[in-house]
Amino acid sequence: MQCGTSKIIGCRFSLHPMDSEFISIIQGALAEVDLSTVWRHTDDVSTVIRGEGPHVFNALTALTEKAASHGKHMAMNATFSVGCPGDTAGDSYMGIEDAVKNEIPEGPYVSSQFSLYPLNQSDYMETIYREINRAKERGVYNESMHYATGIHGSLKDVFSFYEETFAEAQIGEHPHVVMTINMSIHSPSHGGAEHAR
Amino acid sequence: MQCGTSKIIGCRFSLHPMDSEFISIIQGALAEVDLSTVWRHTDDVSTVIRGEGPHVFNALTALTEKAASHGKHMAMNATFSVGCPGDTAGDSYMGIEDAVKNEIPEGPYVSSQFSLYPLNQSDYMETIYREINRAKERGVYNESMHYATGIHGSLKDVFSFYEETFAEAQIGEHPHVVMTINMSIHSPSHGGAEHAR
Ligand SMILES: [Ca+2]
Repeated sequence: MQCGTSKIIGCRFSLHPMDSEFISIIQGALAEVDLSTVWRHTDDVSTVIRGEGPHVFNALTALTEKAASHGKHMAMNATFSVGCPGDTAGDSYMGIEDAVKNEIPEGPYVSSQFSLYPLNQSDYMETIYREINRAKERGVYNESMHYATGIHGSLKDVFSFYEETFAEAQIGEHPHVVMTINMSIHSPSHGGAEHAR
Repeated sequence: MQCGTSKIIGCRFSLHPMDSEFISIIQGALAEVDLSTVWRHTDDVSTVIRGEGPHVFNALTALTEKAASHGKHMAMNATFSVGCPGDTAGDSYMGIEDAVKNEIPEGPYVSSQFSLYPLNQSDYMETIYREINRAKERGVYNESMHYATGIHGSLKDVFSFYEETFAEAQIGEHPHVVMTINMSIHSPSHGGAEHAR
């Protein structure tokens, strides 16, 4: 695990189209999305992108939207991380002041679950409960559950919430915060287009 | 998020067969595996199982093996959790002294990535580095990477390592430990059956 005290935002994610054409679906999304403002590496299990927060969130949102545009059931899971002591300063595009590269449409209904892990905050549970309240205020809260919180809505609204909550969870001088997201799109388990069940 | 100071081991996971027959593959695995010693709930994004550690690990290992037995590319992601302050004592089968229910074959080659998050340990990075060394000792270490560590080998060896390392990471009086795993089986990105690339 290479994980310094930089403000590099990292995200390790996987897209899982539940279809035999999964390779072309993922490659198509990678080709259509502008990833020029994030550092990227793909291996046999996942892809990691690193850079400024807005660009990292924009890249993942756009990739997820493109990969879901075929209408097939797709899962996406992502782990966001910042401030891990031991992170290297390299492998990142920092100081990019440009506007984000990809326009994000409202997108399909997504049902997702997230967990927040503030690693070096003694009052980390307060941070978690505050961010769950934020989800309620933003209108994307779905339900409480063991080990996670259900978040749903349009793809754009859900990712906007995650970007805001990850920024707000970075409290203190050297925050090390991890956030995991699991997302389901076009699921046969979704009862209709608008509700998770 | 409902997350007490109990020793209930919880695992929230998803199986993602990259095939249009994903529903029958998952339902087939659920039907074939003995899940009688764990509490279980499935929603539209993931499944949570709770109980004694050996039974929780046995259930997930068996489910993953069965779901991969069709030979199609499959991803599995799981978050293990113990000791979250705010966890409820319910929704669990504790005090089950039985032997584990499912026999685990050696299974296919799996490539995976894991991260360990000890939530209330001031020396949590030491725990992480120690457990990475354990992977090397057990012969399942693949590579170091941003935000995770690559673990590979036979399905049985990889899950045995995860069970051991999750138990060993529970240090102190009220450990709250989270471990995330992402796994890929029968991936076209695996260069041959034995190596991750
Ligand atoms: Ca996944």
